[in-house]
Amino acid sequence: MSVVVQNIERADAAVIAGLADCGVATVHEAQGRRGLLGSSLRPIFAGAQVAGSAVTISAPPGDNWMVHVAIEQLKAGDILVLAPTSPCEDGYFGDLLATSAMARGCVGLIIDAGVRDVRDLTRMGFPVWSKAIFAQGTVKETLGSVNVPVVCAGALVNPGDVVVADDDGVCVVRRADAETVLAAARKRVAAEEEKRRRLAAGELGLDIYDMRGRLAAKGLKYV
Amino acid sequence: MSVVVQNIERADAAVIAGLADCGVATVHEAQGRRGLLGSSLRPIFAGAQVAGSAVTISAPPGDNWMVHVAIEQLKAGDILVLAPTSPCEDGYFGDLLATSAMARGCVGLIIDAGVRDVRDLTRMGFPVWSKAIFAQGTVKETLGSVNVPVVCAGALVNPGDVVVADDDGVCVVRRADAETVLAAARKRVAAEEEKRRRLAAGELGLDIYDMRGRLAAKGLKYV
Amino acid sequence: MSVVVQNIERADAAVIAGLADCGVATVHEAQGRRGLLGSSLRPIFAGAQVAGSAVTISAPPGDNWMVHVAIEQLKAGDILVLAPTSPCEDGYFGDLLATSAMARGCVGLIIDAGVRDVRDLTRMGFPVWSKAIFAQGTVKETLGSVNVPVVCAGALVNPGDVVVADDDGVCVVRRADAETVLAAARKRVAAEEEKRRRLAAGELGLDIYDMRGRLAAKGLKYV
Amino acid sequence: MSVVVQNIERADAAVIAGLADCGVATVHEAQGRRGLLGSSLRPIFAGAQVAGSAVTISAPPGDNWMVHVAIEQLKAGDILVLAPTSPCEDGYFGDLLATSAMARGCVGLIIDAGVRDVRDLTRMGFPVWSKAIFAQGTVKETLGSVNVPVVCAGALVNPGDVVVADDDGVCVVRRADAETVLAAARKRVAAEEEKRRRLAAGELGLDIYDMRGRLAAKGLKYV
Amino acid sequence: MSVVVQNIERADAAVIAGLADCGVATVHEAQGRRGLLGSSLRPIFAGAQVAGSAVTISAPPGDNWMVHVAIEQLKAGDILVLAPTSPCEDGYFGDLLATSAMARGCVGLIIDAGVRDVRDLTRMGFPVWSKAIFAQGTVKETLGSVNVPVVCAGALVNPGDVVVADDDGVCVVRRADAETVLAAARKRVAAEEEKRRRLAAGELGLDIYDMRGRLAAKGLKYV
Amino acid sequence: MSVVVQNIERADAAVIAGLADCGVATVHEAQGRRGLLGSSLRPIFAGAQVAGSAVTISAPPGDNWMVHVAIEQLKAGDILVLAPTSPCEDGYFGDLLATSAMARGCVGLIIDAGVRDVRDLTRMGFPVWSKAIFAQGTVKETLGSVNVPVVCAGALVNPGDVVVADDDGVCVVRRADAETVLAAARKRVAAEEEKRRRLAAGELGLDIYDMRGRLAAKGLKYV
Repeated sequence: MSVVVQNIERADAAVIAGLADCGVATVHEAQGRRGLLGSSLRPIFAGAQVAGSAVTISAPPGDNWMVHVAIEQLKAGDILVLAPTSPCEDGYFGDLLATSAMARGCVGLIIDAGVRDVRDLTRMGFPVWSKAIFAQGTVKETLGSVNVPVVCAGALVNPGDVVVADDDGVCVVRRADAETVLAAARKRVAAEEEKRRRLAAGELGLDIYDMRGRLAAKGLKYV
Repeated sequence: MSVVVQNIERADAAVIAGLADCGVATVHEAQGRRGLLGSSLRPIFAGAQVAGSAVTISAPPGDNWMVHVAIEQLKAGDILVLAPTSPCEDGYFGDLLATSAMARGCVGLIIDAGVRDVRDLTRMGFPVWSKAIFAQGTVKETLGSVNVPVVCAGALVNPGDVVVADDDGVCVVRRADAETVLAAARKRVAAEEEKRRRLAAGELGLDIYDMRGRLAAKGLKYV
Repeated sequence: MSVVVQNIERADAAVIAGLADCGVATVHEAQGRRGLLGSSLRPIFAGAQVAGSAVTISAPPGDNWMVHVAIEQLKAGDILVLAPTSPCEDGYFGDLLATSAMARGCVGLIIDAGVRDVRDLTRMGFPVWSKAIFAQGTVKETLGSVNVPVVCAGALVNPGDVVVADDDGVCVVRRADAETVLAAARKRVAAEEEKRRRLAAGELGLDIYDMRGRLAAKGLKYV
Repeated sequence: MSVVVQNIERADAAVIAGLADCGVATVHEAQGRRGLLGSSLRPIFAGAQVAGSAVTISAPPGDNWMVHVAIEQLKAGDILVLAPTSPCEDGYFGDLLATSAMARGCVGLIIDAGVRDVRDLTRMGFPVWSKAIFAQGTVKETLGSVNVPVVCAGALVNPGDVVVADDDGVCVVRRADAETVLAAARKRVAAEEEKRRRLAAGELGLDIYDMRGRLAAKGLKYV
Repeated sequence: MSVVVQNIERADAAVIAGLADCGVATVHEAQGRRGLLGSSLRPIFAGAQVAGSAVTISAPPGDNWMVHVAIEQLKAGDILVLAPTSPCEDGYFGDLLATSAMARGCVGLIIDAGVRDVRDLTRMGFPVWSKAIFAQGTVKETLGSVNVPVVCAGALVNPGDVVVADDDGVCVVRRADAETVLAAARKRVAAEEEKRRRLAAGELGLDIYDMRGRLAAKGLKYV
Repeated sequence: MSVVVQNIERADAAVIAGLADCGVATVHEAQGRRGLLGSSLRPIFAGAQVAGSAVTISAPPGDNWMVHVAIEQLKAGDILVLAPTSPCEDGYFGDLLATSAMARGCVGLIIDAGVRDVRDLTRMGFPVWSKAIFAQGTVKETLGSVNVPVVCAGALVNPGDVVVADDDGVCVVRRADAETVLAAARKRVAAEEEKRRRLAAGELGLDIYDMRGRLAAKGLKYV
């Protein structure tokens, strides 16, 4: 039952870069408020904003053997996504694995478990979104799988899906939808510019979005 | 049952500024160790220290309609305080709403739920104390209320109360008590200066506060 | 039952300094993956990396009287370790106590409870690893003990044990083992240098650690 | 600042009994979906359904002295409501205090902290809704207050308010609103009878509540 | 984006009944330790052991409109599975909805949110596995979907998958795998009988499973 | 580093039985409010009240191999105490292991992780106090140790210590202190009888414990 799927399809690199530019909140809205991973995943340092093709890892609790296996499958622009098979906060990943992943062009790690060596990872500029920071070491005894669909922090991630991550968290976009979602996200960014200008000038959302009538109809009373 | 109270009383601006200067821990002590909001509320960036008059929002879970309504009620120096009617960590608030709130002189947001666009909010210098950072979008379908008493992170906040927030968390001061509490807080700050100097010089709290006799009387043994 | 043990043994200062240099993850591995305190303890600011001899405090919930008692027992290079006798997140410690502790050469605080005045503590460069940041004040009514064994965040800490702390968390090393653990940790650091160089050059952990045969024997399938 | 308010007003006993009969979910709906205490409060045994006039206790963490003070203030039909001044799960209350409270006619305890002797309490039929079951003992060193407004599990409770509790949790009704809420709750119970009969016979909520048109208007698609 | 899928395929009723008989732990093992929903889901009463075809609901936080829509889609032997689109513990479901669901042959509810009227549900014998028991009411304002794939408590559930639930929790079996998993589960049950007999007679697992050699080879020392 | 300590000392059987009779809350008080395990450990069924000599297990996350090893070390009257080396809620233990443990006279299991087959365990009358109920299976790949000191749910447990458990939780008594603690506990039980009688007759704790003067001295005001 333990497999490594070697040839996965990836979205277009320009589309992935575009999604990174839009950021998590915009992408999430643009695809209909779907695809967010849980808020328990937090970045180990502020300011990173990346997107990549998911190379997924299903790993046993406290066992990081499959991370080594997954690194061989990485191509430039990929992002590792690790989901343990039962809840765990051990430190599956540290600076040596990050060195190896970066050497293969990996842009980051999403892990519903722990990470360690975070000072080194910060110096190296390797971004990680994790459930915990925990120095607890792991073993290499039990197999898992690489590039199978996983549920990570409550969201389904397929290998090759585009994963976008920034200070707001992490969002997954189905590979086949990436181009459409990017178009919608860019439209949204453009529309926000105009709104931001008007709001900064003191106009109210109540007026810009024409909410007053509907609020009154619902029964809101001003006293 | 959904109301917007339009005319609330506020404390004196100089008093509010004075409370901001004293900071949360001192104000909390000065008013008898009362008024703290729960430690689940954390700032989205370090270093902000503000105080403002509370404009309160009672909002349904996952629905940020009332934030738009509340922004119209803001005056310069106000702080938004949002409590959902049931536990929720959705991102009620982002950079567009912050742009609008800042245009009206709002000094920050306290929210017992989620916030998003935190990188933008940080750049804008708009401080938020929240339970979560989460990009999850909200709807605008169900009414709530503005400027009614709310329980936020375990503390009662009335509209017009003074809310003080810094890296230690958030504290509420009743509007009518603000001046008295400020006087007590300033007295406390002054007293701490002398103690800090003596402690830095190597004197012990055991001696400064004359604790040795009482410790012995309670039965403490040195071995 | 409330005691202050005044004369505790400490490890050699050079050994302690060496352990600080190695950091938490390495020390934890070097002593056989033991001794980590729980991941609920987080630093109040990033970048500190210290080690010290534990001066332990067993304190009642919401009562910081014993901190004053413990400070008298501090020698240069010590680190305070506070465990409440039942779960508590009150702010036992702030800038005045830190001023006093620093005046006696204390290098930091590990506390399975709350801390406050974190902006001041950050400015002072006094590192704290805590379960919470919470301005909640404490009383001085009930005795505890100083320099007795405590369980802090799930790990047993004896007075005089070496406590290492950095951005990855906190690890305890038995005083008698400190020298041996340091030797093992240094060996580990040296070995990692070579591995890091090879990984950075693009070699795979699968090859460096010779994992392919064992993975195949366990049944891993590449598809 | 520590007070015991001795003469509080209470709602009519028949109204309180009526609210108990209606139960938490119905009362909560009948007063506009307000007044619920957090779901962290759970009954120590299943099946109890009570209501009483709140005698409130504001107590320091780990100190149950004020419970003794509060018991003197109890009248038949009262319910104790304890909120610690900072988060705590110690066992403030056990079988001896329950014996004393029952001797004065107390109908139960709501506590945002811990309780112990739960086997005895179950045998005695004294219902408790608590955040934790924990044998941890408390001290009697620091004052609190009795019959002041408290925030308990996120809800404001005034002395003399009616507190309703059953297997679904705990709800507070303002004393002045008790009669009105009871009338609304009874109307709701009556209306539910007819609906229950129709639903049991196989009719759909979609038809009984006439939802199909509005669902279609909102855009729901059947495929 | 809001859809109701009306015709879903279901597994064979006898297979579903067989899986219910085997129970969660056995089914989970029999399909390779996959498919468990998180341990946060707990039964509202002990002793229920059911299996059914999943009718899935994706619902907004605090909005139970789609439950009414889903009930129309139920056939005898189905089980409702509700996942909110963001974390929520409101009480989406109570005795009226249970009456309606039972009238259509529904065998239970799995909900990664709250439930209420648990005393009535217990009396009715309608089993629910939920994240919370909470009387908090919901609204009917925003659409969701019925019979689309959902992630519930960390596990992917497709409409028509077989969901098994008992006191140990909840497990999902892909519809297409149900027959194979049942065969494996029954084989496992049979094998356990013999082991149980031998263990009850005092034989050790160390001998029955022939573990001593492998333990020694790994380096276990008896002292 | 993985060891099985075969010959541990145990307390006297009559003393252990006496401690079981006194129960957790009384034993905890009798030994100076020490020794409680965290409130996260809950019984899988109500009403069990046991004590036994601890046979301890230090086990890797998600690996129950050492349970088999520990069972061979059990003598009649022992209780298993399992602490994982990092946080884990997998189901280490089910009905087959319970059958084996009961065959050797084991009186229960304390586990800071998960348990499964709880319906069977309840039928068998084998009591378990656990952090979670979770069907998640474990592997048998990595060694741990048996009969070494462990920290379980925040308390240090040595092999041969007496562990008392009931509906209030779990408490550990050092083997050498067991007799003294039992004497103190029995004295406490006797003293409570008289107090219970007086309280039931309507006397107040305020009078029985003579608290009024001290309350007044501390400044309590009656209004």
